[in-house]
Amino acid sequence: METFEAIQKRASLKARLSAREIEPWKIARVLEAARLAPSSRNRQPWRFVVVKGKDAVVRVVEGSFRDANQVAKEAPVVIIACANPADDETVNGQEIYLFDVALAVENLVLAATDLGLVTHLMRAVDEDKLKNLLGLPAEVRFVIATPLAYPIGRSYEEAAQERLGQRTRKDAKEVVYLNTWGSAF
Amino acid sequence: METFEAIQKRASLKARLSAREIEPWKIARVLEAARLAPSSRNRQPWRFVVVKGKDAVVRVVEGSFRDANQVAKEAPVVIIACANPADDETVNGQEIYLFDVALAVENLVLAATDLGLVTHLMRAVDEDKLKNLLGLPAEVRFVIATPLAYPIGRSYEEAAQERLGQRTRKDAKEVVYLNTWGSAF
Repeated sequence: METFEAIQKRASLKARLSAREIEPWKIARVLEAARLAPSSRNRQPWRFVVVKGKDAVVRVVEGSFRDANQVAKEAPVVIIACANPADDETVNGQEIYLFDVALAVENLVLAATDLGLVTHLMRAVDEDKLKNLLGLPAEVRFVIATPLAYPIGRSYEEAAQERLGQRTRKDAKEVVYLNTWGSAF
Repeated sequence: METFEAIQKRASLKARLSAREIEPWKIARVLEAARLAPSSRNRQPWRFVVVKGKDAVVRVVEGSFRDANQVAKEAPVVIIACANPADDETVNGQEIYLFDVALAVENLVLAATDLGLVTHLMRAVDEDKLKNLLGLPAEVRFVIATPLAYPIGRSYEEAAQERLGQRTRKDAKEVVYLNTWGSAF
C-alpha cells in the first residue's frame, strides 16, 4: 500500500477484531517498522511486550484493561509499548520517552494498516496490574497498548469504511499557521 | 512509495538540504498526513507553524536554533510542532500531548520521505527565543522542529544512502519480548 494511503486508512478499529491467527512474519514486520523510528540522540527508549496466544491475551486484558477495552481480548496479539524514562532525555520538563515511543508506535500502526491488520491505541489500563502481569521492572512505564488482528469482514477496507466515514479532525486552518501563531497558512 | 519502504528510507538528513523551493501541494500534503494521526480521545493537540521563505527561515533558525542545527536555514521550509499541554490529558503523570504530537510528526516525516523530501527532527532550540519569534502563547510548548527540503543530489535515495548505511538500531531481541519482560520473542 502507498504510504499516504496507509496514513489515510489507518483507523482505530477495536470493534473489528478477528481471532484469526496472524502469520509470524507480519508480527515481526510491524515490530521492525517500530524499531526503525527516529529518536532523540538515537536513544531508542521503546520496548515492546508482544502478548500472543489466546490464554496470554485473555489473562492480560482481563487482568488490567478497563471495561471499554475488554474487547481487545478478541485479538490473537496485543502489543504493549513501554519504556524506562531514564533511557531518554528530559528537556525543559518534557519527558522525551513519551515522544520517542510514539514515533515508533505510529510506524507500527501504519505498517499494520499496510498489511491489512487492524490496531487501536489504548491507554485505559491499570498500570500497576499490567506491570505485575508482564513482569515489568519498577522503573519501566506503560505507554500504550494495541491489539493486532485481522479485521472481521472481507477486507481491511470494508472493516474501516464506516469508521473512516465518521472520522472527525480539526480543520487545517485550526492547526496550521504560517510563520507566526494564528496566521493563516 | 510503499509504506514499509518509506519507513525504511526515512532518515535524518540535515546535511543534505537543498534550497530548491517546494511545491505548495507537497507542503500541504505532509501537513495533511500529520492531521490524520490518531490521538488520545481525538484531542488533536498538535499545532504546526510553517516557517516559509528564506527571510523567515533565517530569522527563526538564527534567532533560536542551537549551533549544530544552524544548517536548517538552508531549507526553504522549517516546520515547528507545538502544543498546549492542557489540550490533552495527563495520565499518571504522563503528559500525553508529547505522545500525540509525535504520532502526527511521524506521519509528517513519512509523508515527506514518500514525496522525496528530507527532514531531520530537531529539539535543540532556545524555546523562549523561538516562542518569541513565532508569537506562541505563553501556555504553548515547543515540541519539535524539522526542516523540509528537497535533497542535495539526484534523488532522495542517493541523498539518504550514506546515512542509511551508517544506521544503528538496537537488535530486535533488546527491544521486543514475548508475553513477559525479558522473554525472547
